[in-house]
Amino acid sequence: MSKVNFKPLADRVLVEPAAAEEKTASGIIIPDTAKEKPQRGEIVAIGTGKKDEPINVKVGDQVLYGKYSGTEISIDGKEYLIMKESDIYGIV
Amino acid sequence: MSKVNFKPLADRVLVEPAAAEEKTASGIIIPDTAKEKPQRGEIVAIGTGKKDEPINVKVGDQVLYGKYSGTEISIDGKEYLIMKESDIYGIV
Amino acid sequence: MSKVNFKPLADRVLVEPAAAEEKTASGIIIPDTAKEKPQRGEIVAIGTGKKDEPINVKVGDQVLYGKYSGTEISIDGKEYLIMKESDIYGIV
Amino acid sequence: MSKVNFKPLADRVLVEPAAAEEKTASGIIIPDTAKEKPQRGEIVAIGTGKKDEPINVKVGDQVLYGKYSGTEISIDGKEYLIMKESDIYGIV
Amino acid sequence: MSKVNFKPLADRVLVEPAAAEEKTASGIIIPDTAKEKPQRGEIVAIGTGKKDEPINVKVGDQVLYGKYSGTEISIDGKEYLIMKESDIYGIV
Amino acid sequence: MSKVNFKPLADRVLVEPAAAEEKTASGIIIPDTAKEKPQRGEIVAIGTGKKDEPINVKVGDQVLYGKYSGTEISIDGKEYLIMKESDIYGIV
Amino acid sequence: MSKVNFKPLADRVLVEPAAAEEKTASGIIIPDTAKEKPQRGEIVAIGTGKKDEPINVKVGDQVLYGKYSGTEISIDGKEYLIMKESDIYGIV
Repeated sequence: MSKVNFKPLADRVLVEPAAAEEKTASGIIIPDTAKEKPQRGEIVAIGTGKKDEPINVKVGDQVLYGKYSGTEISIDGKEYLIMKESDIYGIV
Repeated sequence: MSKVNFKPLADRVLVEPAAAEEKTASGIIIPDTAKEKPQRGEIVAIGTGKKDEPINVKVGDQVLYGKYSGTEISIDGKEYLIMKESDIYGIV
Repeated sequence: MSKVNFKPLADRVLVEPAAAEEKTASGIIIPDTAKEKPQRGEIVAIGTGKKDEPINVKVGDQVLYGKYSGTEISIDGKEYLIMKESDIYGIV
Repeated sequence: MSKVNFKPLADRVLVEPAAAEEKTASGIIIPDTAKEKPQRGEIVAIGTGKKDEPINVKVGDQVLYGKYSGTEISIDGKEYLIMKESDIYGIV
Repeated sequence: MSKVNFKPLADRVLVEPAAAEEKTASGIIIPDTAKEKPQRGEIVAIGTGKKDEPINVKVGDQVLYGKYSGTEISIDGKEYLIMKESDIYGIV
Repeated sequence: MSKVNFKPLADRVLVEPAAAEEKTASGIIIPDTAKEKPQRGEIVAIGTGKKDEPINVKVGDQVLYGKYSGTEISIDGKEYLIMKESDIYGIV
Repeated sequence: MSKVNFKPLADRVLVEPAAAEEKTASGIIIPDTAKEKPQRGEIVAIGTGKKDEPINVKVGDQVLYGKYSGTEISIDGKEYLIMKESDIYGIV
């Protein structure tokens, strides 16, 4: 789990996307342009929630989210996704 | 009923779509391209509901839902639909 | 009244549309393509309502609804309309 | 006042539109195609209102409403308008 | 102040628009086609307000409103504007 | 501060826009067509606020607002902007 | 930290954007047209919050925000961004 110096506000969470798969199931190496954008990641920071709606995921949870969820932000040279907790489908 | 390692968040449910019918009523085999996308499935996992709105369906329920409801997600190599409980029309 | 094996969720109701009229008032047979889509039907199943908003129609009520209300679903080979109670104009 | 066999749901009311005027103020007969759609009618049936919002018009009230308010429905061969009470401007 | 036989519903008010100016400041007569649509009028009837939101203007108030506010209705052969109280900018 | 005979309703405020600058910082006279529409003005009248939401600005406050905020209205031959308090960014 | 003579209203905050980077990581000078619009800045003034929703950031916080968040305003010849607190992703 990576440690990150960032505190999301309200109902936002910071997600570190899983690395896109490098090989197909049968072992063929996938070129960069054909890699599928991953929809799975790990929660690395969470906000304090909104009034009466605490955050339900915790740091370290493996989560699935929508293909177009969140906004990419770069913190200390590394790419993360910041999204609302409601954009997360569930915990694996 | 299939067991799945996934915990939906809030008011979401995970649905395993019924297999599309392979034959017409009169026994003709339907090619893949002509198969109708099924609108029926089985609940395989449910969220904890929203504040004051518990989930009303339970794991194992056979449900009907809209043609374009939910988002396809792949868990352990199998396709499921994740949708909000409100996208479900009712229980068969 | 037809019996149907389906339990609508929340504020949804299941409606069995009245058969489109086969003849004009003066007795002329109407071809299928000219039949008007009926806007009248019978409630065959109701949901449990939403929090603090019980369902006001009951099974067996003859109702009028909008031309484009509801979604067609097929249950046991028969066509029904599933719609929200708020799509129903009133009881005849 | 006409009697009608229809019970609107919730905040809906059933309005019998006034007949379009047949003559101009100076007595010229207006052909059908030039008749203005009336914006005035009589309440013939009212719903039970919504939670905490009773219906304020009563059967027999002469009301004005918007040109495009309501939906035409036919009950026992006669044309009425079904609309939400909020579509009614006021009582004459 | 004109007397009018009309009772607006809820948060609606009936406004009698001020007559468009007939002359420019320097006395030139303005032809009908060049007259500006007035944005000023007098309240001639008010509704009873909505639950917990009484109407704040009173009959006789001179008010300003938006250029495209309200709907023209004709009562006893005279043109008025019916609008929501919230369409009124303020009292002159 | 100009005195104006106008009482805004609810959460509206009346703003007298600052005069557009006539010269650039270096003293060049700006022709009318090149003048920037000012985004700064002075509150000249305020409404009574909405239920539970009093108005926070006071008459005389210098405020900044969005380029396209408010509606121009003319009172006693002078141009003002009427806008909702929420269109105001802050007080200078 | 810069001091600014501006008091945002309600849930707005004033942000001083960080200067766009002048050089790439490897030391190449970036021309103005190729500079990325920064998404990082410092809170220089905060509003009083909305009813029951106090502002959670404080003056001096380094924050990240969306690429298109906020509106540029100029105060005392310097450019700032005014935005709603909800447009801020989190605190670095």
